[in-house]
Amino acid sequence: MRQQLDRFAIPLRPHLKTAKSIEVARRVLVAPHEAAMVSTLREAEFYASHGLRDLIYGVGIAPPKLSRVGEIRVRYCTDLTVVLDSVEQAEAVVSWSRENNQALPVLIEVDVDGHRSGVRLADSPLLIAIARKLVEGGATLRGVMTHAGASYNLQSAGDLIAAAAAERATAVRAAEMLRAVGLACPIVSIGSTPTASFARDLTGVTEVRAGVFMFGDLVQAGIGTCGIEDIAVSVLATVIGHSGAQGRIMVDSGWMALSQDRGTSRQTIDQHYGLVCDEGCRPYPDLLVLEANQEHGTVGIRRGSAATLPDLPIGSLVRILPNHACATAAQHDRYHVIADATVVSQWPRVNGW
Amino acid sequence: MRQQLDRFAIPLRPHLKTAKSIEVARRVLVAPHEAAMVSTLREAEFYASHGLRDLIYGVGIAPPKLSRVGEIRVRYCTDLTVVLDSVEQAEAVVSWSRENNQALPVLIEVDVDGHRSGVRLADSPLLIAIARKLVEGGATLRGVMTHAGASYNLQSAGDLIAAAAAERATAVRAAEMLRAVGLACPIVSIGSTPTASFARDLTGVTEVRAGVFMFGDLVQAGIGTCGIEDIAVSVLATVIGHSGAQGRIMVDSGWMALSQDRGTSRQTIDQHYGLVCDEGCRPYPDLLVLEANQEHGTVGIRRGSAATLPDLPIGSLVRILPNHACATAAQHDRYHVIADATVVSQWPRVNGW
Repeated sequence: MRQQLDRFAIPLRPHLKTAKSIEVARRVLVAPHEAAMVSTLREAEFYASHGLRDLIYGVGIAPPKLSRVGEIRVRYCTDLTVVLDSVEQAEAVVSWSRENNQALPVLIEVDVDGHRSGVRLADSPLLIAIARKLVEGGATLRGVMTHAGASYNLQSAGDLIAAAAAERATAVRAAEMLRAVGLACPIVSIGSTPTASFARDLTGVTEVRAGVFMFGDLVQAGIGTCGIEDIAVSVLATVIGHSGAQGRIMVDSGWMALSQDRGTSRQTIDQHYGLVCDEGCRPYPDLLVLEANQEHGTVGIRRGSAATLPDLPIGSLVRILPNHACATAAQHDRYHVIADATVVSQWPRVNGW
Repeated sequence: MRQQLDRFAIPLRPHLKTAKSIEVARRVLVAPHEAAMVSTLREAEFYASHGLRDLIYGVGIAPPKLSRVGEIRVRYCTDLTVVLDSVEQAEAVVSWSRENNQALPVLIEVDVDGHRSGVRLADSPLLIAIARKLVEGGATLRGVMTHAGASYNLQSAGDLIAAAAAERATAVRAAEMLRAVGLACPIVSIGSTPTASFARDLTGVTEVRAGVFMFGDLVQAGIGTCGIEDIAVSVLATVIGHSGAQGRIMVDSGWMALSQDRGTSRQTIDQHYGLVCDEGCRPYPDLLVLEANQEHGTVGIRRGSAATLPDLPIGSLVRILPNHACATAAQHDRYHVIADATVVSQWPRVNGW
């Protein structure tokens, strides 16, 4: 990801919600600035306590959270920026900033694809009203940010290149609208792993955010941002039974270990609840977790495939590659780090809120 | 649930995997025996360390786990029973029992509905071969157990009564097969919340297991084992945005807080990612979490409904009722216990394996 962005000389701001681990963060942060994005204030506290000094909290701010934002900023001398997309939120930030004599830095979220949040550019008066409210009220307007979440539903390179171009164009246009009325917009932050991977032009953008690229997963492999062999997280499972008549193998990993993410169900190749590999992470042809209960996974061959069930006696170990690394990792409190088939370290996660 | 089973004078063995909390367990355990079921060996350790002395580990045993089972039994003087459905597993249990001079108690799992695991009764020679292997090898055959997991897909009382009758009949027939060849079968353990709730006859059954009834959820309400007003767990969320044009409200609870369980998608009333209520847990008509990203929930009115969006300014608190209590609770490390609109206690969960 860094190589891809270096071509455009645009810095990466890693989204640390995928791994929720300082050890993983250290491997993706770009010195010396070490800017990062987080999805919860608990992550913000955690990473700030580990010395990160430039964080964006990426979920729209709500007034009851402002005091915690302020505490993190002061306690850890961390430049924690909030995100918003309404005049109400801007008013709350302005009031809080004034009452606490602390000008909170803000990015205005701009919608690029109708995915979920953000001001629509068709509503440029709203964008400018929010920005003016912030600047005139004494908060710090840092700029604009976008998240091309709909890109997760794309699979062709052409569509992905177009989505990346549209995200860039929308973000840059929003910044220009603010500048046109005399407001500063130093940050133009865009990002999603798919659009970051397929960007062909980043003119006017000041930073790119991405997270899931750190691990990769079956959805990303389906999109084309990684290969299956690049996927860095898997769930180790034990074979606990067979149903010969039905051609099924039972494993002790159900949705509690795998999550219920079925992101590949919308893709060309549906990987069900995960692709089953040997202990060395070599996939068995078309061997999938077809069903998942709490602690039971039902493994079988993909429908229509000519592959046959491998011989996996009870007690055999298998590795399951996930649909969605963020969701599967979220089911665990730590990573077991493997080198040369040995667990060499355990890295804790910061779950919760 | 206890009242339902008292009608048949059959003891309840609560499945503690839903709550994973000793405080919840204490409220559902039946004195003086306090028998319970668990889904992980970590739960077994946890509940044994809190004094529970009669546990079944309900996921088919694999040989690498036997030493941990033995340790729990010895360290906590706890009668921890394992479950299996193959001769290979029986051989492993027998070898371990002999080598460690500790006769492990075993239940043979019997399939009642093709849901996932268990010996099929059509394969009665297998059932008897497993039982003989255990008895002759020096393990302790306790009996048979079934789980009518397919009952979660039913919604009519007639179908549920029939599923409960079929589960009972299959379990009792398996026990009779063993007794017919001179093997003791003291335990005939059946269970699932739906079949336990709709049982009309439990002749020959010695205990019933159920778990999700403790909390209830939208799937159970759809099945008819509880009402929506009975659901005891919810996720507290904050309104963080609006999209007026699209009639959407954004909240700060996505799949990280709610899980991705969509169990009601197979039911008559699809509740999407959850039913949205006011802070006092009164549902807003047809207000659902329509989409869930990691920390974002997109709330809107059910398609085709005449209901209108409630006025929920940014910062408003809502409660979201879950599709599946087990899955949603699994996303959290504790419960905030509420009485008279006040958090009166926090109960930790025992997550992990």
